[in-house]
Amino acid sequence: VKKKHDEVLFGHRGMALEDELNASNEYYRATEQAVVYKKPTPVQIVKVDYPKRAKAVIKEAYFRQPSTTDYNGVYQGRYLDFEAKETKNKKSFPLKNFHQHQIDHFSRCLLQQGICFVIVKFVSLQRLFLYPATQLIIHWNEQESTGHKSIALADFEKHGFEIDYAIQPTIPYLKAVDQLIMH
Amino acid sequence: VKKKHDEVLFGHRGMALEDELNASNEYYRATEQAVVYKKPTPVQIVKVDYPKRAKAVIKEAYFRQPSTTDYNGVYQGRYLDFEAKETKNKKSFPLKNFHQHQIDHFSRCLLQQGICFVIVKFVSLQRLFLYPATQLIIHWNEQESTGHKSIALADFEKHGFEIDYAIQPTIPYLKAVDQLIMH
Ligand SMILES: [Mg+2]
Ligand SMILES: [Mg+2]
Repeated sequence: VKKKHDEVLFGHRGMALEDELNASNEYYRATEQAVVYKKPTPVQIVKVDYPKRAKAVIKEAYFRQPSTTDYNGVYQGRYLDFEAKETKNKKSFPLKNFHQHQIDHFSRCLLQQGICFVIVKFVSLQRLFLYPATQLIIHWNEQESTGHKSIALADFEKHGFEIDYAIQPTIPYLKAVDQLIMH
Repeated sequence: VKKKHDEVLFGHRGMALEDELNASNEYYRATEQAVVYKKPTPVQIVKVDYPKRAKAVIKEAYFRQPSTTDYNGVYQGRYLDFEAKETKNKKSFPLKNFHQHQIDHFSRCLLQQGICFVIVKFVSLQRLFLYPATQLIIHWNEQESTGHKSIALADFEKHGFEIDYAIQPTIPYLKAVDQLIMH
């Protein structure tokens, strides 16, 4: 059993969470289960060359701060909105991985009855959780008063929904979304 | 009355439909009525410089074909997905303004019970319509057999929902979304 576990680990070692989610979303689209995409990185384009007989080349551009989260889409009439985050920590997830604009965006989407969450990967543990944005917002807002700058693994086990890696899709997160909705 | 009308026209003359929609979406977010954003232009980044004491500069990048439509978001629990299009034509809207990938994306989102539509602006007429994606798909698929390469203005008047320009938001399209949902 130990050996099998190592193989699974090895299979995912080189693959970033985003790639795994993109592949899973592709599978969900192909099988007509959901339509979810990662948003393109926002870029401020300053200079573009239009060479003859060749495609336009962007020669100067800058990364812009995103206003929203990474992923959104539609699943059985529901609006899904989520952020993907990885940590090498083994016992907790540092809140500094989030930005105020992501928290604000989640709050606005929750007001509109969107299904909002984070997919957090504890890389060293090879454990994955869907964690509700409502819980994240509580921890975010309590930082000042409690001084807790991270969310404990035990909190993910209690309030989150663990996702087991699979073959197709690699990250079957819609099962966890179903649990979140039922909850 | 003629004069007032001209002023209104003049007020919008220099403003592209996308800018008007972005401003309207900002208003809808600020007033907590909906959370809708235009997606960033997808760009394939090839070369980035990281100068000391200055922000990263993208030195080589290319425009990528988007896989989806321009706008999406959440409104009262509903997933909204739409494309914005302008035409200078006065009597019809040419279907060549759409791409197969946009039609496919709409079809997939409709299967998931998303609210899918186009906002079409007849620039010369200063008339705006919310037009259901279901109707667009019908016209798109009939092109081959009927030979009709455009959608008549009369069809927008019949199957679409006209949007009147306003002060705040400039394009109050959620009213038309309500009509589409009720329909
Ligand atoms: Mg992320
Ligand atoms: Mg467009």
